[in-house]
Amino acid sequence: MNKGIFISLEGPDGAGKTSVLQALLPKLAAFDMELVTTREPGGVAIAEDIRSVILNPENTAMDDKTELLLYIAARRQHLKERILPALDGGKLLLVDRFIDSSVAYQGFGRGLDVKDINWLNDYATDGLVPDLTLYFDINVEEGLARIAKNRHHDVDRLDMETVDMHERVRQGYLSILEQDPERMVKVDASHPLEQVIEEAFSIISKRFFK
Amino acid sequence: MNKGIFISLEGPDGAGKTSVLQALLPKLAAFDMELVTTREPGGVAIAEDIRSVILNPENTAMDDKTELLLYIAARRQHLKERILPALDGGKLLLVDRFIDSSVAYQGFGRGLDVKDINWLNDYATDGLVPDLTLYFDINVEEGLARIAKNRHHDVDRLDMETVDMHERVRQGYLSILEQDPERMVKVDASHPLEQVIEEAFSIISKRFFK
Repeated sequence: MNKGIFISLEGPDGAGKTSVLQALLPKLAAFDMELVTTREPGGVAIAEDIRSVILNPENTAMDDKTELLLYIAARRQHLKERILPALDGGKLLLVDRFIDSSVAYQGFGRGLDVKDINWLNDYATDGLVPDLTLYFDINVEEGLARIAKNRHHDVDRLDMETVDMHERVRQGYLSILEQDPERMVKVDASHPLEQVIEEAFSIISKRFFK
Repeated sequence: MNKGIFISLEGPDGAGKTSVLQALLPKLAAFDMELVTTREPGGVAIAEDIRSVILNPENTAMDDKTELLLYIAARRQHLKERILPALDGGKLLLVDRFIDSSVAYQGFGRGLDVKDINWLNDYATDGLVPDLTLYFDINVEEGLARIAKNRHHDVDRLDMETVDMHERVRQGYLSILEQDPERMVKVDASHPLEQVIEEAFSIISKRFFK
């Protein structure tokens, strides 16, 4: 049994997940557990090396399965070097994206078989799943509009072409939510940021600190 | 259905596999099929990138499963870019190490679960297996002695420490041989090189060109 608490944050870019995570930290400090936040590859040298292979702009010939296997390999290493030591050390661990991102993006988004992705996630994590996953839900148009706003330009042709992909990713998250409602809790990320932060904090408090 | 012929060569280092492969090429040229030889990562840029992560001497913290997943990712990309095009093009393809090396080395050698490795191999190859696998069998002491001879020094302490590992790898190959005797054929690699080449050539001739 892990002594720590493992919380993952999931959702599309534009849902505000990272801003919420930062705002949660001072509030969670009240619970007197040491906080650790991380995201793959998380500064783990081997996982960073793997990530640079995935992101190398010259690697245009990369097969979808190759890409997935590389994400899974990086996940394994990050788990061993960052996640497990934090949990063994009794930390409150918040991870920005974890197993569900592979299901939503590579599975529902790219069309790889979700059963296989579940197998690979399970293999890489030795079956470890987060104690709680906060899914920040936002409709696709609003999410893309927020991303575009942050880039200081309107939604452009390229963004529009990806609406279908983002819609599939959202369906992926909603499908996981349906299958695993105990672990995953939906947060309506279309609300104002302060309200989203409060809701996320409230869910964590009730689950672990009541 | 593939139009080409897919032959893999397996066995421990020191069995003479690579020398045999080179010697086979002029003999196989008689069969009037275009020959292709390759080995992972096979000059495929993405697979080479992955290989460099595995071999980076600074990556001492690499977990066994991470290493396996990286080999599997490199296999996938090499398959897509080199093996499948060669087979689709009707070539006679000789591959130096393939799926069985992962089973023998990472499975029997390192102790990872063979059932999982079989699953991963199957995932990476979409179920493609060689039409024929030549397994070059040699007892561990003789194989290590040959490697040491090529290095121009006697078997040293480090080599000796790995005898157990090499013994497990050999048991791995023998186990595959037992389970898949139709695909895998054993060649006694303790015989003189000329004889080993003749036997390998004879097996290929009878299987595909009679």
